[in-house]
Amino acid sequence: MSKHSIVHSTFTVERTYPATAARVFNAFTDPVKKRRWFGESEGFVIETFTVDVREGGHEVSTFRFQGGPLMRNDTVYQDIVENQRLVFVYSMVVGDKRISSSLASVELFPEGKSTRLVYTEQGQFFDGIEEPKQRQLGCDELMGRLADELAHHS
Amino acid sequence: MSKHSIVHSTFTVERTYPATAARVFNAFTDPVKKRRWFGESEGFVIETFTVDVREGGHEVSTFRFQGGPLMRNDTVYQDIVENQRLVFVYSMVVGDKRISSSLASVELFPEGKSTRLVYTEQGQFFDGIEEPKQRQLGCDELMGRLADELAHHS
Repeated sequence: MSKHSIVHSTFTVERTYPATAARVFNAFTDPVKKRRWFGESEGFVIETFTVDVREGGHEVSTFRFQGGPLMRNDTVYQDIVENQRLVFVYSMVVGDKRISSSLASVELFPEGKSTRLVYTEQGQFFDGIEEPKQRQLGCDELMGRLADELAHHS
Repeated sequence: MSKHSIVHSTFTVERTYPATAARVFNAFTDPVKKRRWFGESEGFVIETFTVDVREGGHEVSTFRFQGGPLMRNDTVYQDIVENQRLVFVYSMVVGDKRISSSLASVELFPEGKSTRLVYTEQGQFFDGIEEPKQRQLGCDELMGRLADELAHHS
């Protein structure tokens, strides 16, 4: 019997953006914006990038990092409340190996003219391939890239 | 703006069954068996019950409890390792209101002639409708019903 394991891990990333909740929400639903901050990054070549924010909507992105194996993010939205929350499940696949499945939520809380975003990921990391800590760092970096998106694009 | 909230909660239910991992796994994949222990229960009337254990497979069950509103369990399998684990996401919907989305795993560990089952649910409970503790009790009861299934059916 081959060796299989699951590490269950929950982590949270919080940021406050000087933008309305509607603007932050829009950065998740607008395909051009979402691809810019969520997909495009130095060293990554994107092969597929779809956006479909509706309950039951399925998004797929496939990409390679520095000529490495094809990586795939399969996302399916579970629950959406406009300008308030997005709940989705996503799996990460490297080559033909699923390395994780996660349930994630993005919650938006207006605070004066700003918006506090709370990202919570409840992840299952399979067979010791990726550390939850590494995923958390990646998500923190993404939330920083979202700050840049909001600062530099209308 | 209406009041929305998410409670994130992770819980685990463990049982050891006097059965092989293959038998326990089969109780999840055989439609007759799964319906018997997972679906049929006093006071519940089942309207739909499908079983489709494969990665990407979608299961739906709809039922009423004592003439109450229609309830629906939407399950999609994320990762399957035969006789070892099942990973799935499921939402519970009451009437037309989604009350939770959860990522869950069933892990099977052979221990001599028995099998230890570890059920882990990473749940998001929406808008204060169901308490995670209530869900945990329900899952514990289900694992007891699985014990009865394994004891009384081949």
